[in-house]
Amino acid sequence: VSGLGEFDLIDALAARLDPPDEGLGIGDDAATWRPGAGSVVVATTDMLVEGIHFRLDWTSPRDLGWKALAVNLSDLAAMGARPGRGLVSVALLPGQAELVEELYEGMNELARLTGTRIVGGDTVRSPGPLVVNVALIGEADSDRLLRRDGARPGDLLALTGTVGASAAGLDLLVRDDRESLARPEAGPLLAAHHRPQPQLAAGGALAALGLKCAIDVSDGVASEAWHLARASHVAIEIDVERLPLAPEAVSLLGEEKARQLALSGGEDYQLLFAVPETRLTDVAAALRDGGPPIVVGRVTGERPGGDVVVLESGRPVQAAQAGYVAF
Amino acid sequence: VSGLGEFDLIDALAARLDPPDEGLGIGDDAATWRPGAGSVVVATTDMLVEGIHFRLDWTSPRDLGWKALAVNLSDLAAMGARPGRGLVSVALLPGQAELVEELYEGMNELARLTGTRIVGGDTVRSPGPLVVNVALIGEADSDRLLRRDGARPGDLLALTGTVGASAAGLDLLVRDDRESLARPEAGPLLAAHHRPQPQLAAGGALAALGLKCAIDVSDGVASEAWHLARASHVAIEIDVERLPLAPEAVSLLGEEKARQLALSGGEDYQLLFAVPETRLTDVAAALRDGGPPIVVGRVTGERPGGDVVVLESGRPVQAAQAGYVAF
Repeated sequence: VSGLGEFDLIDALAARLDPPDEGLGIGDDAATWRPGAGSVVVATTDMLVEGIHFRLDWTSPRDLGWKALAVNLSDLAAMGARPGRGLVSVALLPGQAELVEELYEGMNELARLTGTRIVGGDTVRSPGPLVVNVALIGEADSDRLLRRDGARPGDLLALTGTVGASAAGLDLLVRDDRESLARPEAGPLLAAHHRPQPQLAAGGALAALGLKCAIDVSDGVASEAWHLARASHVAIEIDVERLPLAPEAVSLLGEEKARQLALSGGEDYQLLFAVPETRLTDVAAALRDGGPPIVVGRVTGERPGGDVVVLESGRPVQAAQAGYVAF
Repeated sequence: VSGLGEFDLIDALAARLDPPDEGLGIGDDAATWRPGAGSVVVATTDMLVEGIHFRLDWTSPRDLGWKALAVNLSDLAAMGARPGRGLVSVALLPGQAELVEELYEGMNELARLTGTRIVGGDTVRSPGPLVVNVALIGEADSDRLLRRDGARPGDLLALTGTVGASAAGLDLLVRDDRESLARPEAGPLLAAHHRPQPQLAAGGALAALGLKCAIDVSDGVASEAWHLARASHVAIEIDVERLPLAPEAVSLLGEEKARQLALSGGEDYQLLFAVPETRLTDVAAALRDGGPPIVVGRVTGERPGGDVVVLESGRPVQAAQAGYVAF
């Protein structure tokens, strides 16, 4: 497929996507659609760069396409929003056309499962690294948004599922731990890393219940708790023993390491949300299909600028503001 | 500013932007806003990659920020749409934080001039090239869209202004033509290349008049005529002598070269649109402020798959499907 022209490539990529359900898709200067009456638009974007966010010897193009969309869908889930139309930009080397076609196939798999349509994009040359940017535009009911600034003193903090699996899978790859990689427990960890599951149903359910505050776990529970604490101006306690660890991570890496990856590893894409104690039964009923919520901490009071304390056996330990990237 | 943390950088960048007029902006998992009643959403995205689309020794960070937004605004103009909210993704090297802050300042200059708000984005590390992706979401009246497939036999094809200036400016830079670069005519050519002016007012006026077909000139008039011909299934004639050449390009590079750059150079971001002959006076009146439309060709008939003939002294010459990039 090398030597394909730009417009042939665009045609080949469009053929891998479900067509838009209404309005204009790929092929005009812009995509169009009619927004739902009474809804607010909810928009997010994420860029994945080869050598920083992924390596092509560790990740298949299909998984990369899935993940590039999944991380954006997770942002919509964290707002309680519904998908959604996506715009996909790819910078590729000559000779990578077939790879990018597979990337689109993986992306369309998840798009189909979640009711997302890829309606436009840009395809350009790269001088080296493969770059994938997805911008995703969804909708929500305006009075039903899960915001970062909605946590209140007395709220419990809960997760929609286990954490640390993705970081454990990455850890096996980084250390090239062939013994562990050959064991059956590695499968779910690598799957969590390569094909994260955005918690759209859970986010929608929490928003429908009238909850006010959630974030998705992209950088580790400690880092996300800091985001909520700063935006809501509250102090948060996290009980490290209550973190729902991925059992395969505990099995392959031990409890201490699994716990550290849950706290500061990231890429779990579960939701961390605030819930008044009186609403916990409602939440458990609403989330039943995806597994019950797991309480991991609480909002202890108001605190301008925010604070997070991580407790182990009731004693504060290092509450790293993880997810730090220096520029 | 090197060594700035990710969240400090996001704060520094957000400080360079006008805040959203309503809804959530930078600082939550996604941006939100309420769409205009009865409007359709119009969304587009463009990626600029260092070494492919720009060089930092030729382009200032401020100009790059302006241009990254301008090329997206031009897509909205070509649909007859209004801005708009933007999402900006940047991949940068450690040490480029200050550069990216200036990029945001240049982008916000154009945002302010056009009623655009930058409401979100992503800031990631690059292993080398600087990458800037803008996704722009605007609105239009659903029955007033300028589409690529709206050209009809008998329509005239017209431009909103001169073409070839940007490509002429780039030509001077590529050839490092210091003698020409020192002359006053170089100024407008470099300005056209670095700070293109999206034709939002013209696009809006054409749409309001009920015209049906336009495209923005990003790849040269010949290439854009091909897009219209293919989408509308018509044959198009372009009279090369009627192309409105940038006078500074003619002065510095000669008429032959200026004409070739107008036909196949690109990055002019004027609009090429189809107009029934009977509507030409209305269009001239509506576009008066930005200069009258310049008729450069016509739709000669229906043609499945499209066709473009470029005429010079009434004889067909090479009608290159310019803008071809091999992958």
